[in-house]
Amino acid sequence: EHIPFTPRRYDEQYMVKRSKEFYEVLNQRRSVRFISSEPVPREVIDNIVRAAGTSPSGAHTEPWTFVVVHDPEVKHKIREIIEEEEEINYRKRMGDKWVNDLKRLRTNWIKEYLDTAPYLILIFKQIYGILSSDRKKTHYYNEISVSIACGILLAAIQYAGLVTVTTTPLNCGPRLRVLLERPTNEKLLMLLPVGYPSKDATVPNLKRKPLDEIMVAI
Amino acid sequence: EHIPFTPRRYDEQYMVKRSKEFYEVLNQRRSVRFISSEPVPREVIDNIVRAAGTSPSGAHTEPWTFVVVHDPEVKHKIREIIEEEEEINYRKRMGDKWVNDLKRLRTNWIKEYLDTAPYLILIFKQIYGILSSDRKKTHYYNEISVSIACGILLAAIQYAGLVTVTTTPLNCGPRLRVLLERPTNEKLLMLLPVGYPSKDATVPNLKRKPLDEIMVAI
Ligand SMILES: Cc1cc2nc3c(=O)[nH]c(=O)nc-3n(C[C@H](O)[C@H](O)[C@H](O)COP(=O)(O)O)c2cc1C
Ligand SMILES: Cc1cc2nc3c(=O)[nH]c(=O)nc-3n(C[C@H](O)[C@H](O)[C@H](O)COP(=O)(O)O)c2cc1C
Repeated sequence: EHIPFTPRRYDEQYMVKRSKEFYEVLNQRRSVRFISSEPVPREVIDNIVRAAGTSPSGAHTEPWTFVVVHDPEVKHKIREIIEEEEEINYRKRMGDKWVNDLKRLRTNWIKEYLDTAPYLILIFKQIYGILSSDRKKTHYYNEISVSIACGILLAAIQYAGLVTVTTTPLNCGPRLRVLLERPTNEKLLMLLPVGYPSKDATVPNLKRKPLDEIMVAI
Repeated sequence: EHIPFTPRRYDEQYMVKRSKEFYEVLNQRRSVRFISSEPVPREVIDNIVRAAGTSPSGAHTEPWTFVVVHDPEVKHKIREIIEEEEEINYRKRMGDKWVNDLKRLRTNWIKEYLDTAPYLILIFKQIYGILSSDRKKTHYYNEISVSIACGILLAAIQYAGLVTVTTTPLNCGPRLRVLLERPTNEKLLMLLPVGYPSKDATVPNLKRKPLDEIMVAI
């Protein structure tokens, strides 16, 4: 069944203003790797996950699960798994070139924010769905769809005034899936620690490309 | 070099309000496949692309190119390529199951919006970069990074009050890349027609999963 769709419209001037304002809010976003243990209202977390859940998805499969971890013991177990694997990643699996490309970010395998951040959001992609009849349901473009949802989640975090860092814990997916008791059709895509920056938080002094380096007008 | 980072903070109540407001704006988003030819201010397009360019990316590689097509002849050539390939996709390449899974969306290979939308944004992922010395620069997680940027772009389009439909024109990438004169390190990821909905626009009557079906709290 198809239904009429007449969304709200803004006049041109207000549209320009809103688009500029949105850019300016998002342009303040930085990946923060020093997160304070200050509590964050749970309602904000619910709302940012709700926002992510409005994402488009291939054939409307909604192939995402957001695991929100607040329990300190579970956060600590996540930290142990990630630090163990990341140390091997940095020392052996990533290779000199990759480790070198990350030098200016000063990232390493010690991730204190996994204990301190009030919330960790682990985003799983469902590589297939399960129909009532136990047959598999194809999830077209599931990784792209869930990454789009993560983009919306990041925008929602920023709009609310919180910080995070986008992380893809290499080789940690299987152990984290078991720890969090997720089914085998789910694979970890990303982990976002969410909170306020700690008082002494710093970020690498990176610049973004200007519009004319990312856009081509025809 | 690392620098202190102290972003703006909101009080808890205002944070809850902003997070709710953002969710409500985004929850109005629908994929619209009937787009009016009414003009849209170019400044809005610039701002939404700027917003997408604030996305995080693996090792800050910013591996995206946004090709914004306004020229009617180029739009029409894009339409011709896509309709030609999509007809073969629907009739032969996708298979009965996929075509069947799309039935309720009533999508097919006729894409009038490619002519009518005032702007088409084609998003290319740079699968590697090119250093001045002509050597290749590795773009870690380029597809995920560009998909995140597309999620932010979709949020920016919605926030500005415009509509689009997320499309992944299957098997059209190579011919569109040549048409738009993009280099071989760039691969088409997505195409977004951007504009206002046409007066008689309809959308499939889909529902989204509620929070408790997408979130697990621990
Ligand atoms: C990765 C991806 C690929 C998609 N490809 C197409 C497409 O090629 N054609 C199309 O009409 N819709 C496409 N869609 C849109 C989905 O069908 C749509 O998001 C879904 O039905 C949910 O509807 P909504 O966006 O209105 O919430 C795609 C969406 C995603 C995320
Ligand atoms: C797909 C992806 C994976 C990333 N993985 C990590 C990671 O594992 N650890 C980390 O500290 N940062 C990670 N980042 C964050 C990037 O390093 C960061 O976005 C980039 O340096 C730009 O900085 P900004 O986000 O402050 O603009 C990742 C970003 C993306 C998009």
